[in-house]
Amino acid sequence: MSEPDPKVFSHLTPDGRLTMVDVGAKTASERSATAAAVVVVSARTEALLRERALPKGDALVAAQVAGILAAKRTAELVPLCHGLPLSSVDIAFSWRGPGRLEVRATARTIAQTGVEMEALTAVSIAALTIYDMVKGVERGVTIERIRLLEKRGGKSGVWSAPEP
Amino acid sequence: MSEPDPKVFSHLTPDGRLTMVDVGAKTASERSATAAAVVVVSARTEALLRERALPKGDALVAAQVAGILAAKRTAELVPLCHGLPLSSVDIAFSWRGPGRLEVRATARTIAQTGVEMEALTAVSIAALTIYDMVKGVERGVTIERIRLLEKRGGKSGVWSAPEP
Amino acid sequence: MSEPDPKVFSHLTPDGRLTMVDVGAKTASERSATAAAVVVVSARTEALLRERALPKGDALVAAQVAGILAAKRTAELVPLCHGLPLSSVDIAFSWRGPGRLEVRATARTIAQTGVEMEALTAVSIAALTIYDMVKGVERGVTIERIRLLEKRGGKSGVWSAPEP
Amino acid sequence: MSEPDPKVFSHLTPDGRLTMVDVGAKTASERSATAAAVVVVSARTEALLRERALPKGDALVAAQVAGILAAKRTAELVPLCHGLPLSSVDIAFSWRGPGRLEVRATARTIAQTGVEMEALTAVSIAALTIYDMVKGVERGVTIERIRLLEKRGGKSGVWSAPEP
Amino acid sequence: MSEPDPKVFSHLTPDGRLTMVDVGAKTASERSATAAAVVVVSARTEALLRERALPKGDALVAAQVAGILAAKRTAELVPLCHGLPLSSVDIAFSWRGPGRLEVRATARTIAQTGVEMEALTAVSIAALTIYDMVKGVERGVTIERIRLLEKRGGKSGVWSAPEP
Amino acid sequence: MSEPDPKVFSHLTPDGRLTMVDVGAKTASERSATAAAVVVVSARTEALLRERALPKGDALVAAQVAGILAAKRTAELVPLCHGLPLSSVDIAFSWRGPGRLEVRATARTIAQTGVEMEALTAVSIAALTIYDMVKGVERGVTIERIRLLEKRGGKSGVWSAPEP
Repeated sequence: MSEPDPKVFSHLTPDGRLTMVDVGAKTASERSATAAAVVVVSARTEALLRERALPKGDALVAAQVAGILAAKRTAELVPLCHGLPLSSVDIAFSWRGPGRLEVRATARTIAQTGVEMEALTAVSIAALTIYDMVKGVERGVTIERIRLLEKRGGKSGVWSAPEP
Repeated sequence: MSEPDPKVFSHLTPDGRLTMVDVGAKTASERSATAAAVVVVSARTEALLRERALPKGDALVAAQVAGILAAKRTAELVPLCHGLPLSSVDIAFSWRGPGRLEVRATARTIAQTGVEMEALTAVSIAALTIYDMVKGVERGVTIERIRLLEKRGGKSGVWSAPEP
Repeated sequence: MSEPDPKVFSHLTPDGRLTMVDVGAKTASERSATAAAVVVVSARTEALLRERALPKGDALVAAQVAGILAAKRTAELVPLCHGLPLSSVDIAFSWRGPGRLEVRATARTIAQTGVEMEALTAVSIAALTIYDMVKGVERGVTIERIRLLEKRGGKSGVWSAPEP
Repeated sequence: MSEPDPKVFSHLTPDGRLTMVDVGAKTASERSATAAAVVVVSARTEALLRERALPKGDALVAAQVAGILAAKRTAELVPLCHGLPLSSVDIAFSWRGPGRLEVRATARTIAQTGVEMEALTAVSIAALTIYDMVKGVERGVTIERIRLLEKRGGKSGVWSAPEP
Repeated sequence: MSEPDPKVFSHLTPDGRLTMVDVGAKTASERSATAAAVVVVSARTEALLRERALPKGDALVAAQVAGILAAKRTAELVPLCHGLPLSSVDIAFSWRGPGRLEVRATARTIAQTGVEMEALTAVSIAALTIYDMVKGVERGVTIERIRLLEKRGGKSGVWSAPEP
Repeated sequence: MSEPDPKVFSHLTPDGRLTMVDVGAKTASERSATAAAVVVVSARTEALLRERALPKGDALVAAQVAGILAAKRTAELVPLCHGLPLSSVDIAFSWRGPGRLEVRATARTIAQTGVEMEALTAVSIAALTIYDMVKGVERGVTIERIRLLEKRGGKSGVWSAPEP
C-alpha cells in the first residue's frame, strides 16, 4: 500500500483533524460511571410530577426508558465514542430541594474504555424527556449541572467529583 | 459520591422502576436461540407467495433481510435488552399446513446473556415484512404464535418448547 | 440519460424484484389504523403484571414507550414502508380472559399512504417488550394473533376486521 | 371493532399512561426554536479549545455535526416527540465569560408542532460531544443551563426566556 | 433574546462553519433523481452473480433491500441533508460490459429540496452490499463511478449527466 | 424441537437464501482494514475545498465525522455484516492529482471477523458527504474507485491491493 506523501498530506487534512483514540492495546476490564443532571421546575410542576398527574403521563418512567435506550446508542450520537457492550444501565430520580429533580444514571461495562459518555448521555436524554413531558404545563424549565459524579475501573482507578 | 437518602429516594422513584439486569458478573459463553412465528394467509396469497408473483416482489427474501437487520438492532427496540455481538442469524420459511407460513430464526452469540429476544425480534419483523408485502392483495392476514422453540447455553443449559 | 437495454436488463434484475409503491400521485389525507396482539401468560405471571411486581419493573409502561418509539421507526424496519409523520400513537392494554393480555395500538397520520404497518409494529414491539420483562419468571410465553382491527381513511375508506 | 370494556380497562392501563398529543387537527405553519447550553471548562481547556489544539481534534466542528445529526433524530430519542421535517438547524458557539462556552442552536420547520425539543437535543448532544473531546485533558467539566431561549410560530406566537 | 456579540462571535465559531441550507421558504414540488454506480468484478464472480450461486446467497436482492433502506436513512448519514418523505425508491441492476455490474437507483419525493443524496446513498449502500457478498470469493473488487445521471423538479428543472 | 421436513423445506426457502456466516468458532484477534475512494471535482471546486471557502462550510471535517459515525453503523446498513466493536477509525484526505481528492479510512478491531466493510462504508459516506457539500457549486461530481487497499489480521494475514 503506497502511503500518501506526508508533506503533501499534512496541509490537506483538516486542521482540527479528529482522532478516535485507538483502544485496541488496552485490556478489557470492569468499569462504571455515574452521572447526574438536575431538572429545575416550578412548585406546581413538582407537584404534578410527584403525583404523576401530568397530562402526558408519568414522566419519570418514560424518562427512565428513554435514558436507558439512549445510553445504548451513545456511540451513534457522540462521534468519537467507541461502541461498548453495556452490562447494565440504572436510572433513578430524587428531589434535591424545592423544584430540583435530580436524574442519576450509572452505566457499567467490561471493556477497553470508560463509560462516562454513556452515563452522561443517559441523564441528558432522561432530562430532555422530562422537559418534553412538562413543557405543556411550564415553559422556562432548565436542565442544570450535567456532570460526572464518579468513575471506576481502567488505568486511572476511582475518580469522584470534587464537590457532591 | 453522596448517595441520595434512600428514605426520600424510594417514593420518588417510579413504582415500577425498570431494572436492566447487570450481566457483568456472568461468564461469556456460546448461546443460541430459535424462535418461530406463523403468518396465516388465504390460498390465493399462498399461491402468490409460492410462485413469487406478488406485485411488490419476493416477500420471503425481503423478509429474510429485514429479519436479520432487525435482530442486530434488538437492543435499540426492546428497552432492557443488552447489546450483543451476534455470531450469526439464520432465517428460514416453511409451509406448515394450508395458508400457514412458518418463519423460523436462529440467533447465535458468545456473550454473557441469551439471545431469545434477538431470535424473537427477527421472526416478528420478518413476519411484519411479509404482511406488508401481501397486504395489497389480502386484508385480514394475521401473525400467530410468536414463540421460542429452543434455547441453548448459559447457566440454564438447553430449553425446548413443551409442544412443537 | 441512456436507458439500459430492457432485453438485457430483464434477466439481470432479481426475479422477485422489490417495488416500493410510488405514492407521489396520491393525495395526503387523514388516516388511522388500529392493531392488536395478545400476550399469553400463566396465572402467576398475570398476577405479577397486574400487581406491577415483576423483578424487572413495570412491563406495561416500558412496553408503551417501546411501542411508540418503534412505530416512529417502522420505515427503518420494514423495507418497503414509506416514512410517515405520525400525528399520534396510542397504546393500551386490557386483559381479555385468563392469562390473555391484549396490546392495542392506534396510529394516526395525514399522509399519502396508510399506517397499518406502524400500528402493527407498535403492538409487536410492545408485546416483545412484555415478553422480555416476564421471561425471567416464565418461559414459554407466546404472542398470539397480531392483526389489524380497523383502518380508516384513504381511497378504501373504513375497513374492520371480520371477527372481533 | 369491539372496544375494551372501559371499567375493566382502566385499572389495567399503566397509571401514568403515556399520551402522544394528537397534532392531526393542527395547521402546519412556520415554527422555530432557539436553545442554549453552557459548557464550563478550566482556563487551560478554554485555551486548547480556542487554539484548536486538543489532542482529539477540533471539538467545535465535531460538536456542530453531532448536534445537527441529533436534532434530526430527536423523535427517536425523546419518546413522545413527533417526527418533523426540519427546514434547517444552526449551531454556533460563543465564549460568555472565562471558561464558559455557550452552545446555541436554532431549529426551523413547517409543521403542526413546535421544534423546542429539536433545538434542545441539538445543544445537549453538541455539549456532550465537547465534553467527550476535552475529557482527556480535564475531568470535572460540567454542562450548565440547558434551556429554551426563544420559540416562534404556532398558536402561542413568540415566547422568549424571561432572563437572557 | 440577547444576540452574541458578532465581533466576539466570529472567531469563536469554527472557521469552516457548517450551514444546513434553510429550505423553509421553498415550495414543495415533485422531484426525482437517478444515480448509478458500477461494481467491477472478475468473470468468475460475474458468473456466480448471474447464476445466483454465491455462497452467501442472492446478492442482488439483498442489495436492493439494503439500498432502499439506506435511501430512507440518508439524513442520518449525510450531516447536512434534510429529512425527506420518499414517495418511492427503485433499484435495478444491469451488466454494462464484462464484469461491470451497474446499480441504478431512482428516488422520488414531493418536498422542498432535491433527492440526489438519497439516490446516491441507495446505489452506494447497494454496491457495498454486493461487495460484502462477493468478498469471500473475490478480493480486489472495486466500486467505480458513483454519480448522478438525472435530476428532475425544483427551480433548476431537468439536469442530465453530460456523458451517459 | 421438531425440524421442518428438509424436502418440503428446500423449495420454500428463497432460492438465493441469505446466509450470515457463523463466526462463533473463530478466535477474536486484532484486525485492521484500509479503504480508499476518490472524489473527482473541477479546478474551481478543488480551490474552494482547499481554501475551506465552500458556502456550506468545511466539507472535509464534516466528511470525517460522517465517515466515523457511519463506520460504527456498518452492520445496520450492510445486511450480512456482523456488529463489531471498533477500536478506532481514522479518516484522512489527500489530493492525488488535479481535482482528485482521495478519502482514506482505516478501521481497527479485536474481533472474530474482518473490518473491510467498516473501512469501505467510512470512505463511501465520507465521499457522499463531500459530494453533498459541493453539489451547490458543481454538478456532475463523481466518486471513483472505492476499494480496499490493505487488510491485516485473521487467518488470511496481510492482503494488499495489487496496484496502488
